[in-house]
Amino acid sequence: MPAEIIAVGTEIASGAKLDTNSQWLSLRLGEVGIPVRYHTTVADDFDANVEVFRTALQRAEIVLVTGGLGPTQDDLTRQALAQALGVDLVLDDPSLHAIEEMFASRGRPMSASNRLQAMFPRGSSPLPNPVGTAPGIWCSLLRAGEAPAHLAAMPGVPSEMHRMFREQVEPRLTGHSVIRRAVVNCFGFGEAQTEELLGDLTRRGADPEVGITAHEATISLRIIAQGIRQTDCDAKIEGVRRLLAERLGDTIFGVDDEEPEHVVVRELAQRGATVGVCESATRGNLSERLMRVEGGERVLRGGLVLPADAVFSALLDGVPSPPSALNAATGSALAVQLAQAARRRFHTAYGLGVTSLGEVALGGGRTVACAWVAVADGEHTHAAEARSTGNPAIFAPRTSKIALDLLRRRLLGLRPSLDS
Amino acid sequence: MPAEIIAVGTEIASGAKLDTNSQWLSLRLGEVGIPVRYHTTVADDFDANVEVFRTALQRAEIVLVTGGLGPTQDDLTRQALAQALGVDLVLDDPSLHAIEEMFASRGRPMSASNRLQAMFPRGSSPLPNPVGTAPGIWCSLLRAGEAPAHLAAMPGVPSEMHRMFREQVEPRLTGHSVIRRAVVNCFGFGEAQTEELLGDLTRRGADPEVGITAHEATISLRIIAQGIRQTDCDAKIEGVRRLLAERLGDTIFGVDDEEPEHVVVRELAQRGATVGVCESATRGNLSERLMRVEGGERVLRGGLVLPADAVFSALLDGVPSPPSALNAATGSALAVQLAQAARRRFHTAYGLGVTSLGEVALGGGRTVACAWVAVADGEHTHAAEARSTGNPAIFAPRTSKIALDLLRRRLLGLRPSLDS
Repeated sequence: MPAEIIAVGTEIASGAKLDTNSQWLSLRLGEVGIPVRYHTTVADDFDANVEVFRTALQRAEIVLVTGGLGPTQDDLTRQALAQALGVDLVLDDPSLHAIEEMFASRGRPMSASNRLQAMFPRGSSPLPNPVGTAPGIWCSLLRAGEAPAHLAAMPGVPSEMHRMFREQVEPRLTGHSVIRRAVVNCFGFGEAQTEELLGDLTRRGADPEVGITAHEATISLRIIAQGIRQTDCDAKIEGVRRLLAERLGDTIFGVDDEEPEHVVVRELAQRGATVGVCESATRGNLSERLMRVEGGERVLRGGLVLPADAVFSALLDGVPSPPSALNAATGSALAVQLAQAARRRFHTAYGLGVTSLGEVALGGGRTVACAWVAVADGEHTHAAEARSTGNPAIFAPRTSKIALDLLRRRLLGLRPSLDS
Repeated sequence: MPAEIIAVGTEIASGAKLDTNSQWLSLRLGEVGIPVRYHTTVADDFDANVEVFRTALQRAEIVLVTGGLGPTQDDLTRQALAQALGVDLVLDDPSLHAIEEMFASRGRPMSASNRLQAMFPRGSSPLPNPVGTAPGIWCSLLRAGEAPAHLAAMPGVPSEMHRMFREQVEPRLTGHSVIRRAVVNCFGFGEAQTEELLGDLTRRGADPEVGITAHEATISLRIIAQGIRQTDCDAKIEGVRRLLAERLGDTIFGVDDEEPEHVVVRELAQRGATVGVCESATRGNLSERLMRVEGGERVLRGGLVLPADAVFSALLDGVPSPPSALNAATGSALAVQLAQAARRRFHTAYGLGVTSLGEVALGGGRTVACAWVAVADGEHTHAAEARSTGNPAIFAPRTSKIALDLLRRRLLGLRPSLDS
């Protein structure tokens, strides 16, 4: 039962406007167990519209269209749909009355072109629009030797489309299986390494299916289960969760949209504890990350962002300025001093430190750029290396997360790092 | 010369992730005069991928694909593309060496699956990826009786894709009439207000055409001129630049991708001057913004990021902690104190201060959330209000830029603000 979602409009094809309707509809179809295989965006071009509708009605059983139902010359959905179905357009009197009513109730004149909005491909059904002038269209196409295809054309205005989908389209699509999903997030392994650890769990077509995505070094595992009953789906998801926990252990830190800073802020808040930050190579990313989380301002008592060549002594209660070239030995030691200075300066229970960039030897005369991060509390300190992966856009968020993960592990009583 | 843009990935088809790559590519193609007729998103399904590539290579002359080039099992773009072209995959030794090098330089083990990333459809060309492991693919398909179709497959990671497109794909797409573009950036007016000031300059189909886009309160005016000779285009662009300068005056601060922080860092560096930051409502955004610009570490001597309820006195050499509710009078005064404290604490020529949130009365009993920003040097101080526009995602960057604009105006000897 694959579905296709079509967005009509030159403003989207040209990039002038971002299409968010297709994502919204995909999520809604997913919730009722209908997998979406294609999105298509097509410019306001009659032939291209006809071709896109024909293709969709061949390759998908459910086709949802948004846009192109307005009264202007470049709104071509109803004409193109009639052509794709090989039928003519006929006037629907109740729809015409509804449109006339809407204009009358708003005290606005109705233009002749609005009359076209009451025309429908022969054999289709109008989908009334209680909040706008453009009614939608529902039609079904019988296909030799295959299940029929169903198509709903809805307005492109999100508020009108959402209501029409919820009230009139979704009820026509139900009766299929239930789908449930869950997201588990981990930090520490790379994407390929995670896939190796998960093995057959990520096999395509598995039920539940597990997909891997990465965002700024956070790895998300998306579990999707289908079944007749919700409880069956939930049980399957629970089973996968247990397997993930076995294979990924304490690298798993959260669910849904959580990032390491959410966990750290929550765990600190629960203990009534606070943290201070002193950072260089992350350029403020670590402080900003903690400060913008809900509740972050209550636990992060201050962040000090320093350039690589800062003169530390006066700012940091006597921490000597770092040697000009940091290496594995001096880097870790400095990160610990910065974490301790952050604690002192902001009078907090925990301190996080991030040094400026240095480098470590890889053997064979090669080196890699590296910063060092550390966590300190009244009793312990732990430091870790954050090596450059070559992508500068990822370096700051990834290094910040390595520091946050040290603190998460300290708060939860886990081993300090993956390697220990 | 219609183009089609294809986004590959179940995470997009299912709605789990919003596709922004297709919009970005549409805008870039529009700038070089190539109209985009279709966007297609396809799930990670081999047969569906093959079909989508075949269809696109029939109906479009330029096909841009993002995603599906990674090393995991659900990355199918290279295999599906080979199938659609009717050829096999062959190993490209330089690409394999580049991938091996990248892993070696990061000191990380390379999985067997990464080797697949060095395989290419026979007859295609690799597009090297200087910032990630996945090289892209460029291929052309001869079509009987029609112009050949060209296809570029690029990584789905936006930063990698942007660079690959700019450096390797865009140059291959030119060869049409000469197109020259220029971007002029301004700060201070809203998007609608800018459009009013520009009047007929933004009319569609004008030559040169001027498009307005807004990104975190920076307004960019994109000038596109077409012509037979480059010198004609350049002359047209120069004419528009002069008109923009007349109508937008000193709100114009830069060109291309410049943001206010680029100008501030450059102007400070030219004077051998430095700046310190003390910020609250911007949550580290102001420090991060200055620190991550090329050369920023040499002029920003330190940033202090404080929560709304910080106890200022000890941290800021005696600045009293703010009253619990800031208003127009106390807000401006505090911003000035913070800017002065930043100067003292970091021993800099200039200081920037951003308060926590307060509110100002609008009349009729209504209020709006507001932060105050200020710049200080040894002689002068200037403060400004940064009102919430209702969009929390814009508040921190916009407020940071209001502060940076105060400093830019001070450095360049301009009036302190638009209103003065």
